Amino acid sequence: MVDHLRSPGFLRHIQACNWHDLSGFRPFSIAGVTVGQVRVGFMERLLTLGPPFVADQGGIALHPDLTDAPSRSRAVASALDRLVAAGVIRELRREMYAVTEGWGQPTLMELDRAAIPYFGVTAYGLHVNGFVRQPDGIHLWVGKRAMDRGVAPGQYDNLVAGGQPAGLSLADNLVKEAWEEAGLPADMALRAVPVGAISYLMEQDKGLKPDILFLYDLELPADFVPRNTDGEVERFDLWPLSRVAASVRDSDDWKFNVNLTVIDFLIRHGWLTPDHPEYLELCRGLRR
Amino acid sequence: MVDHLRSPGFLRHIQACNWHDLSGFRPFSIAGVTVGQVRVGFMERLLTLGPPFVADQGGIALHPDLTDAPSRSRAVASALDRLVAAGVIRELRREMYAVTEGWGQPTLMELDRAAIPYFGVTAYGLHVNGFVRQPDGIHLWVGKRAMDRGVAPGQYDNLVAGGQPAGLSLADNLVKEAWEEAGLPADMALRAVPVGAISYLMEQDKGLKPDILFLYDLELPADFVPRNTDGEVERFDLWPLSRVAASVRDSDDWKFNVNLTVIDFLIRHGWLTPDHPEYLELCRGLRR
Repeated sequence: MVDHLRSPGFLRHIQACNWHDLSGFRPFSIAGVTVGQVRVGFMERLLTLGPPFVADQGGIALHPDLTDAPSRSRAVASALDRLVAAGVIRELRREMYAVTEGWGQPTLMELDRAAIPYFGVTAYGLHVNGFVRQPDGIHLWVGKRAMDRGVAPGQYDNLVAGGQPAGLSLADNLVKEAWEEAGLPADMALRAVPVGAISYLMEQDKGLKPDILFLYDLELPADFVPRNTDGEVERFDLWPLSRVAASVRDSDDWKFNVNLTVIDFLIRHGWLTPDHPEYLELCRGLRR
Repeated sequence: MVDHLRSPGFLRHIQACNWHDLSGFRPFSIAGVTVGQVRVGFMERLLTLGPPFVADQGGIALHPDLTDAPSRSRAVASALDRLVAAGVIRELRREMYAVTEGWGQPTLMELDRAAIPYFGVTAYGLHVNGFVRQPDGIHLWVGKRAMDRGVAPGQYDNLVAGGQPAGLSLADNLVKEAWEEAGLPADMALRAVPVGAISYLMEQDKGLKPDILFLYDLELPADFVPRNTDGEVERFDLWPLSRVAASVRDSDDWKFNVNLTVIDFLIRHGWLTPDHPEYLELCRGLRR
């Protein structure tokens, strides 16, 4: 990460989530549709495996004999087992994501969540900003992630957040994650209002994360206290929005992409205003 | 306009506001900064005028001897008078816009609003969605523009909307436009919450409109009735959000860019949801 991203501000978080150099990546295709981007080294490794992977116009593709989603998913799962055995991928998550041409499009195959960045496939998620209106303004529920998490241990998170698994509707996933992460009953979770989507494209050691997050606002009664049930969150605290904003602006204490969901909240609720020098770049930068 | 834009839907409005072919345009620069794009024919016409315009790297620039904003503004105003006399520009608006390198940057010159699209200079505006919460949901105030307007006569508009003139703060412009267009007292206008900004790039006969609109939400008491004071709006009606959405989706009855400010409102207030097939394209398309 370059040095200027360390200086305070909101925009640096958007820049960090969009740091990438695509020159080291090649397209990954299924049935003629580019669905991801793979690092050159990983591509060469996949080609040494042979089937189901074949070289395809400078990139890599699934073998064209694999003509339906179940057979593609099985063949790739078997290849992933070999990659785990060889130590290329550390371990699988046993949670499947749908690989598609775009949101709402037919599933071309299912892929273990752990492999998603290696293949640079677009992943979808949902994030809920849970808030309370108080006489002195909006207060936001802030989760502190457990220290034993693989991703962002001890960092701040939204009230509810989760990746979107294959075969589950967004609403069902919202209800499931709201219960697991914050102990929200279904009727309360379903009061969450969809308020837009943000996207970013981030290079990581494993590969590429072209992520799309569906955002929800959930206004909660003053007497509700969230309670984590799955061990992902160590503690929830209710912060005034000014403390949230100062923390995002001045620290690196938040999970990388939660900075973005909070900035979107700060814009939509008028905490960030057009006289902020980064305003237009923030509005634009949240959606690529 | 191509035919598919005539079929119902939300996305066609964003496509219409972003219809352009830049191959017929050349850069317009001031002091080495590209601040606009001019149609080739208009550029050639400007070059026949001579000073203050000079050819510059395939485009056109202000003469480098003009080193401050007042002298540039005077020189260009004088050139505009000659263009109006020659019938190239129909008439001036006598309202000045600031030409800058970007929002919040120093003014490089001031330019009559009528000339803005000819020079393809970024214009800024503000739009206020005025709404009332009722037991059956959100209702939006819809203005019907007067039939004698030069722009979008008889079409639907936001409660308050206006271009951003030079030398006025956004807040002062909000108060001014809120009074002129809707009879809103200043204290009520200043309750409007900034909720983001949208942008588009639209080719018109005159030239190019790279516009940025600052958006505000204003929740109004149920007993407030807006009243136009400047003749721009013929009538205000309070519509349930479902009627607003159906009208934007199915008709061409709204001012071209107001379709976009309403779509943004429908997204932020959860009327448009992620299961809409255009959802992600709409979220992305509102900010370029």
